[in-house]
Amino acid sequence: MEEKPLILITNDDSISAKGIAQLVKSMQPLGDIVIVAPDKPQSGMGHAITIHDPLRLKKSNQFPGIEAYTCSGTPVDCVKLAIYEIIKKRPTLLVSGINHGSNAATNVLYSGTMSAAVEGAIEGIPSIGFSLLDHSSDADFEAAGHYATIIAKSVLENGLQSGVCLNVNIPKGKKKALKGTKICRQGRAFWEDSFDKRNDPFGGEYFWLTGKFTTTDKGEDTDIWALENNYISIVPTQFDMTAHHLISSLNEWDLKK
Amino acid sequence: MEEKPLILITNDDSISAKGIAQLVKSMQPLGDIVIVAPDKPQSGMGHAITIHDPLRLKKSNQFPGIEAYTCSGTPVDCVKLAIYEIIKKRPTLLVSGINHGSNAATNVLYSGTMSAAVEGAIEGIPSIGFSLLDHSSDADFEAAGHYATIIAKSVLENGLQSGVCLNVNIPKGKKKALKGTKICRQGRAFWEDSFDKRNDPFGGEYFWLTGKFTTTDKGEDTDIWALENNYISIVPTQFDMTAHHLISSLNEWDLKK
Repeated sequence: MEEKPLILITNDDSISAKGIAQLVKSMQPLGDIVIVAPDKPQSGMGHAITIHDPLRLKKSNQFPGIEAYTCSGTPVDCVKLAIYEIIKKRPTLLVSGINHGSNAATNVLYSGTMSAAVEGAIEGIPSIGFSLLDHSSDADFEAAGHYATIIAKSVLENGLQSGVCLNVNIPKGKKKALKGTKICRQGRAFWEDSFDKRNDPFGGEYFWLTGKFTTTDKGEDTDIWALENNYISIVPTQFDMTAHHLISSLNEWDLKK
Repeated sequence: MEEKPLILITNDDSISAKGIAQLVKSMQPLGDIVIVAPDKPQSGMGHAITIHDPLRLKKSNQFPGIEAYTCSGTPVDCVKLAIYEIIKKRPTLLVSGINHGSNAATNVLYSGTMSAAVEGAIEGIPSIGFSLLDHSSDADFEAAGHYATIIAKSVLENGLQSGVCLNVNIPKGKKKALKGTKICRQGRAFWEDSFDKRNDPFGGEYFWLTGKFTTTDKGEDTDIWALENNYISIVPTQFDMTAHHLISSLNEWDLKK
């Protein structure tokens, strides 16, 4: 009998988020599940790892009948602990999310959800990050969960090229309103930040980071376009950040000592 | 008279690290300097931003005669605060480092130093991250500083294509032992992690993340190879993480609902 796939599930909104509960439900038909998720929200942690503090790991009863742990660290810490300390091997598949909020375009860089998937790719594991374009803690994850199963099943069947994971973003709304999936490139965008300056009760100044997501990328092949047009965006995402096309022109520079 | 370039300096080892002091010294001949650096070590913070906590920003006297600030957040927070709150414009150049320790190969993803440079690139600023292959707090930064001036000067003269920054790593050792610069691709590597498991005085279990940097990438065009052979490695690094070469094959997948 063929062994069932072992699916590692993590996220960045913590083990108690609605999004990870949906992801667990969506992965259950596909294999055996192990969950290692942060014990508190870790949004915006990017590819951070914990090196100046010790990590705590606890068994969790959040999902009865499923092996689950919480970790005091970041999503990338969760992946490392899962592989090297808990299951002590590479899982068949790693899925992260479903994130409460978009990780499209340049958000991939700030995203704990996607950094967990990128870490999976570095470790040679077929990995997918899922995000729903709804920050609400009570968001409706039904359509996202439906597509999570379809896409994860395809990755199990087709595999993923080494060095690549998938960044999947799902528009808000009911399943019937969605137009299906679209393979995209990462849209060019940035956060036009602003800082909300306040004073604490003791007169000390502090800032809250806020911002407006801004793009001038009008391409119809981007995840931004797909999501605006009610498609689920799928961006093949690699951890090789080399701008290969610039190597030859940089070789023209005179950098002699 | 031509205006002097405005150079924003940050790092991840904190404003009191030896590496940033060298970088300040190396940039002084090239333009006017503003420093915004973390108030404590922020190594391994990757592209993390602070969204669940307020940020503190303080004037610093660390470098007499130079406008300098410390920030309670991550290196990326420092860049955002610098651009949107302090200088309220894009600087001519952003330099980050000089990091105490390598940011070559996949370390670029975990690195706060390089994430600050990548954030600069997202903001459209020519940006460079510098790292010395020596973790010691008292490392000898002289050779690294020499090349930092040369490379930053070249970027000011030649510019950098939009969407790209430079990841510069410098081998440990004296200037005369170095063979010069080499334009490289990011080497494929990963951390074979292990966790040092301990018990606190109250019986609670905790872990320290440790690991062994591991590569099977034998290419002579990688930063790993260059550094092992005593070259300064320069990797043009982009924030577009799309695996463009996979878009057409993923379009073959059947992902219909």
